[in-house]
Amino acid sequence: MQRTPGLEIIPLIGLPEFTPDHSLATEIVRSLVGIAVDDGDVLAVTSKVVSKVEGCFVPASERAELIERDTVRVVARMRGPNASAIVENRLGVVAAAAGVDASNVAGDWVLALPEDPDASARRLANELRDALGIDLGIVITDTVGRPWRYGQTDIAIGSANVALYADERGGKDTAGKPLTVTQRCVADEIAAASDLVKGKTAGIPVALVRGLGEYVVPGTDQRARHINRDLELDLFSLGTQEAFEEGYRSALAAVAAGKVLDPRAE
Amino acid sequence: MQRTPGLEIIPLIGLPEFTPDHSLATEIVRSLVGIAVDDGDVLAVTSKVVSKVEGCFVPASERAELIERDTVRVVARMRGPNASAIVENRLGVVAAAAGVDASNVAGDWVLALPEDPDASARRLANELRDALGIDLGIVITDTVGRPWRYGQTDIAIGSANVALYADERGGKDTAGKPLTVTQRCVADEIAAASDLVKGKTAGIPVALVRGLGEYVVPGTDQRARHINRDLELDLFSLGTQEAFEEGYRSALAAVAAGKVLDPRAE
Repeated sequence: MQRTPGLEIIPLIGLPEFTPDHSLATEIVRSLVGIAVDDGDVLAVTSKVVSKVEGCFVPASERAELIERDTVRVVARMRGPNASAIVENRLGVVAAAAGVDASNVAGDWVLALPEDPDASARRLANELRDALGIDLGIVITDTVGRPWRYGQTDIAIGSANVALYADERGGKDTAGKPLTVTQRCVADEIAAASDLVKGKTAGIPVALVRGLGEYVVPGTDQRARHINRDLELDLFSLGTQEAFEEGYRSALAAVAAGKVLDPRAE
Repeated sequence: MQRTPGLEIIPLIGLPEFTPDHSLATEIVRSLVGIAVDDGDVLAVTSKVVSKVEGCFVPASERAELIERDTVRVVARMRGPNASAIVENRLGVVAAAAGVDASNVAGDWVLALPEDPDASARRLANELRDALGIDLGIVITDTVGRPWRYGQTDIAIGSANVALYADERGGKDTAGKPLTVTQRCVADEIAAASDLVKGKTAGIPVALVRGLGEYVVPGTDQRARHINRDLELDLFSLGTQEAFEEGYRSALAAVAAGKVLDPRAE
């Protein structure tokens, strides 16, 4: 099949309002009728619909308990009324309110993130292979804010059959110089790209990205979970105010314990 | 013209190795021959080629001075040999080594970022309108790392004719609930998306993104520079270690000044 040399990002139209009674794979296959899919294509799936088919509904009245349950550690606290904390959640993602979300959920419910989005992606990839006979890449997306930048973008929180990075380390640039650092996070870029069509109109939770052949690697053991930086390599593991306060308390404790004899000399 | 309902991202092939003797607009127009462009299309342009045509070359031996010149404040210091600092640069972008880059630059030169990427984008948009008769959106991109996530993605450091955000605040979601926070940074998502075709192969510094009509706003006064979060609203304005040390010093100074009488009681 003739392809443009670039990418196409196609919103999947006509998907239902998902419930635990739906099969995500079945509905996706149905919505793909008339759209050519091929090895090398990637489906970007909003985590929200994965949560819905997996039944991750929690009564809205239990939102606070859910956030607490899904919080591994608090990174920073926003100020002001109704401000939520920025935390590392059980998936290793740093996000406001642990990624718990009430938007686009009907009734008095909130949605927890999928239990294991990498496993969800793997299941979906397998079911789609059974139905379509091809290995699609799967990226499960979530929306997060960023330090230093206003606004949110989508990132990858689950994946299957996708190479997470365009790893150019060890290669050479066009000028023949060694590339020592460059390691593009393709999975997050796919998530962000897919949001451009998903985000346009409500009710479009899945997009097909065509033309990513070199990043679709059937059976790869790379998992979006591994994009999360290890705590000890993270220069921003604690918010500025929280780290300042920890330092302040630490100094006072050192003084109280007699470990600092002359504070002026430190 | 019939368009797919989604996006197309087309790498521009055959652009030259840019020098200050080139006109970016002229070369882009040349490379667009045979490709349909229309209002609502966006060109994503790697800042590196903007720097090259604007002559932002600095001798490699002056790299350290250039980084210092472009640094507004140090945010965090990486550890280890050859580690660069993460700083806010003169464009307001938080990036390693102030965004100064030696990759894909021939000879003993490094490249500074464009003096004013928003102005560069505006100039390019005007020149392309003169040449093509249409208003294209322009996003000038740079590559940055992220806290909490491995790998880099592209972000927007300059823009013209582009709405930076899909601002859904004040709207309602599909379940009729008010959206209070959601504000997708479309400009950064365009930058990330374009990197998927630019990043694939060296020597592709420009991509055309088709199908973004609702975000192309000719003459908008929105500028990518404004995506940078104001310092006082930034919960991560200083690295964890740096903030801890500041807190520690601050406590000792308070003790030394007699402001803390009983450290154990604080």
